Amino acid sequence: MAANGAAKCKQLTSANIEQFLDSIDSVLIDCDGVLWNANNPIEGAIETIQTLRERGKQPIFVTNNSTKSRRQYVEKFQRLGFSVSEEEIFGTAYVAALYFKHKLKFEGKVYLIGGSGLAEEFALQEIPFIGPGCDHVVEGEDVHDWSNIELDSEVRGVLVGFDPLITFRKVCRAASYLSNPSFPYIATNLDGRLPMPNKGRVIPGTGCLVEAVTKAAARQPTVVGKPNKLMFECVKEKFPTVDPERTVMVGDRLDTDILLGKNCNLKTLMVLTGISSLEDVERNQQSSSESMQTLVPDFYIPSFGQLHKLINKQ
Amino acid sequence: MAANGAAKCKQLTSANIEQFLDSIDSVLIDCDGVLWNANNPIEGAIETIQTLRERGKQPIFVTNNSTKSRRQYVEKFQRLGFSVSEEEIFGTAYVAALYFKHKLKFEGKVYLIGGSGLAEEFALQEIPFIGPGCDHVVEGEDVHDWSNIELDSEVRGVLVGFDPLITFRKVCRAASYLSNPSFPYIATNLDGRLPMPNKGRVIPGTGCLVEAVTKAAARQPTVVGKPNKLMFECVKEKFPTVDPERTVMVGDRLDTDILLGKNCNLKTLMVLTGISSLEDVERNQQSSSESMQTLVPDFYIPSFGQLHKLINKQ
Repeated sequence: MAANGAAKCKQLTSANIEQFLDSIDSVLIDCDGVLWNANNPIEGAIETIQTLRERGKQPIFVTNNSTKSRRQYVEKFQRLGFSVSEEEIFGTAYVAALYFKHKLKFEGKVYLIGGSGLAEEFALQEIPFIGPGCDHVVEGEDVHDWSNIELDSEVRGVLVGFDPLITFRKVCRAASYLSNPSFPYIATNLDGRLPMPNKGRVIPGTGCLVEAVTKAAARQPTVVGKPNKLMFECVKEKFPTVDPERTVMVGDRLDTDILLGKNCNLKTLMVLTGISSLEDVERNQQSSSESMQTLVPDFYIPSFGQLHKLINKQ
Repeated sequence: MAANGAAKCKQLTSANIEQFLDSIDSVLIDCDGVLWNANNPIEGAIETIQTLRERGKQPIFVTNNSTKSRRQYVEKFQRLGFSVSEEEIFGTAYVAALYFKHKLKFEGKVYLIGGSGLAEEFALQEIPFIGPGCDHVVEGEDVHDWSNIELDSEVRGVLVGFDPLITFRKVCRAASYLSNPSFPYIATNLDGRLPMPNKGRVIPGTGCLVEAVTKAAARQPTVVGKPNKLMFECVKEKFPTVDPERTVMVGDRLDTDILLGKNCNLKTLMVLTGISSLEDVERNQQSSSESMQTLVPDFYIPSFGQLHKLINKQ
């Protein structure tokens, strides 16, 4: 990368890998776009996790993806060949449930736009909820009839996560609950699309649902996912020895992963197997805006899967 | 209203009604929130239209609502007791079809997020389209499979209008088509909610769907509805004698109706039976921002239905 003095992003190479390793004890790792794309592991990612463990570095997985509970994540990790334990995984389904439980000290039911992962984590925290599952609109329905839409009188807050079963009626319910300004409006994350589908295809992310509800509700959500520091606070709570100065955040997205790292004073390492590109980094680096210049990682490597080769001098 | 010298909004009263009437020949009238709410006519609105005609003022109906074709609007007007002709009605379904036909000189199919009104107007302009109707997601679908989602190779553009049958898969298709930067991305309007449902209920508007697609596509749409001048250009094309200086725009929304009037140098009259309130006007009037100060109508009246009483000195 061309440096302009204000910020620069160095490639990890055999020349600087040992110095890099010496500077860290913990590795926060995003999942989609770093360890895998959809259901396909990134080549070498499994070996990289193993190598990091062998070198005494603690891997911790932080994902904005709210579709799975920690239990469901362990299943996915294992199915793809990764060896992990449940307590190493921090997804927004889990973190959102913790947020309602401990930060909001929430009482009442949550109206939940989301799937089974969110449902499971909320059940584990013993927070009552309604919402997951089908709420289809049928052809010919008159939306004006929804001005009497049935609402649950015990609902006291709304959470929007990833929900492929989103419908207009779910947005109507969420916005109607949120017309009570005392009800909290929480979103898991704002990612606009999932990483790396085929060319010419876009799979929308949770951010699209959040935008829809936000527009209808005319309110802004609190976002628990990256780049909100809350993710890192949850990590610190479970692993008090994690030292920000000796932790690196690895991710494919500048506006979530890298920004989380910056927000928490972590080192940052970008991989090129997901959403953001070196061109994005260069644009930020050359920007006159200070907040854009923040979105420049300390390091990059083409793929997380190459890291074990660098470390093992292969 | 308290005046601050920069902008003021006068109530229409028996003292100024004749001067107001003498200054206009044409009356552009928004529908939802002005003539009716949902399927209930605003009291006196039918008589006001009749009175305006008797006084030689031409009513023209301009609505951002894209759910109906002009033919379907005539049916609704008549069902509610209003007497109108099809050529007096300009809805965004019609205007969007004109936009594709005459402005874009569009060739190919449109991927249309919308209902039967849009379908009818596009068919009348002989523009091929796909999209309207059900495209439901079923429980348990893996969205990653959508990275191979079937797309129609003849599609060359996307239109987003009001569609209660919106699903995540429709957003996926729209954003996937829009990954081709040469395909136009058009929206009928950006209204965030429908006017005046019951307290504690919100019925989302087209703007919610547009926000979702915009986030996934990472592109901004061209919006054909109010406050885009295009609506008025279509009116002028059909009625060349309409003189902006002698036309008033009547509406319930500052950011669409009143702004359209300002954008086209029309007089503006706000009614209080829909979305915006006098508090909104006051806030804009006292704002230090010039663009906010623009959002102050020349006149207001509590209800369009009261206008005929003022005119007829009842």
